[in-house]
Amino acid sequence: MRPREIPDIVIRRLPIYERTLKQMLDAGITSVSSEELGERIGVTAAQIRRDLSYFGKFGKQGKGYDVARLAEAIAHILHLDRQWDVALAGFGHLGQAIAHYRGFEPNSFRIAAIFARNPEHIGQQVNGTVVLSETELTRVIQEMGIKIGIVAVPAAAAQNVADRMIAGGVRAILNYAPVILKVPPSVWVREIDPISALQSLTYYLDNGDQPDGHAAASLNHRLATEATGD
Amino acid sequence: MRPREIPDIVIRRLPIYERTLKQMLDAGITSVSSEELGERIGVTAAQIRRDLSYFGKFGKQGKGYDVARLAEAIAHILHLDRQWDVALAGFGHLGQAIAHYRGFEPNSFRIAAIFARNPEHIGQQVNGTVVLSETELTRVIQEMGIKIGIVAVPAAAAQNVADRMIAGGVRAILNYAPVILKVPPSVWVREIDPISALQSLTYYLDNGDQPDGHAAASLNHRLATEATGD
Repeated sequence: MRPREIPDIVIRRLPIYERTLKQMLDAGITSVSSEELGERIGVTAAQIRRDLSYFGKFGKQGKGYDVARLAEAIAHILHLDRQWDVALAGFGHLGQAIAHYRGFEPNSFRIAAIFARNPEHIGQQVNGTVVLSETELTRVIQEMGIKIGIVAVPAAAAQNVADRMIAGGVRAILNYAPVILKVPPSVWVREIDPISALQSLTYYLDNGDQPDGHAAASLNHRLATEATGD
Repeated sequence: MRPREIPDIVIRRLPIYERTLKQMLDAGITSVSSEELGERIGVTAAQIRRDLSYFGKFGKQGKGYDVARLAEAIAHILHLDRQWDVALAGFGHLGQAIAHYRGFEPNSFRIAAIFARNPEHIGQQVNGTVVLSETELTRVIQEMGIKIGIVAVPAAAAQNVADRMIAGGVRAILNYAPVILKVPPSVWVREIDPISALQSLTYYLDNGDQPDGHAAASLNHRLATEATGD
């Protein structure tokens, strides 16, 4: 098995699989077929089997998947069986919303450092994390060994902040700023850009076209409809 | 030309093309080759030519693209040559960040209605838009003819809010809640889910693997590396 050959789109579907499996487990479901799992997620059973086949053999012919074991296996593949410290740059409306968001901790992430430019924000606390001056960004990230950064600063400041995160050792960036970050080959970026998302949705409005029924039936179209890459 | 056949991944790249072209125009650049444009965006020249070929013929052999005309053409394809009213449901930290975000108006969107559950929030104003009770959601969306909704409520409330948006006539949803929305075939959803994004990034950390250099060089990997779908 050579991880290098696994398409990124497959990797991006795995968190949805894991989340769905955990929800099933909470609901007391211990076994599931690829058909059932696919129906819940909104992809085909064949897609699920193909995606999972990159990582080995799960489930037995005709018996379906053990929900707990598959959830655990996917968490392991994604390195979610540990907690990751995350550095947040930006403490405006968006940064504050991210800092207060309660979804990180139950999902393997912890906002371990927050950086602000506005002197009024520096020294404030969010869930026990003190807001630091953004001038300290590189040094603190380096000292804490943080590998994941969230960029929530205005567009004009985003590239500079990303550069300084990377200088401190960050290798994965979640970018909320509406700019295309230039990063070295060793760094991964995912954009969380509402404007681009909205601007691609309007294509489907008002042009007399209806989305394909099979794809729209559930999940988001991004994950459900695009090519599998294999 | 049958729009139905254009892969969604191509549609999702177009806003990035348009934004990049507008930035070039602002910088005084009036003509660009597919190679130069690709380099700025982080995709190959062949990819750009293939994506654009779905929509007709742009640029002349050996002369490159007219930046202003291509930007305009893409805006037209995406229906961005008008302003779209958007309904925002949720006015917690995240909803407030979205409501205050200044990136919508210059990009063809206007937060025209805001709905909150907390009585303390109802009646507040954001950029002239009054926060309404979420009990009025369906009626107001219907009366205002709003087609685009943003779901920024807690996970447990998201499906219900989406259902009521759709009942009011919404056909495109930007979903910030970490749940998989079930929607009818006539509705498009895009997920803006930071947890899923982070959980797919950690795959690339700490497993001894480096991302592919060519893909990582710029843009986000989501758009740059996945299959073209054609």
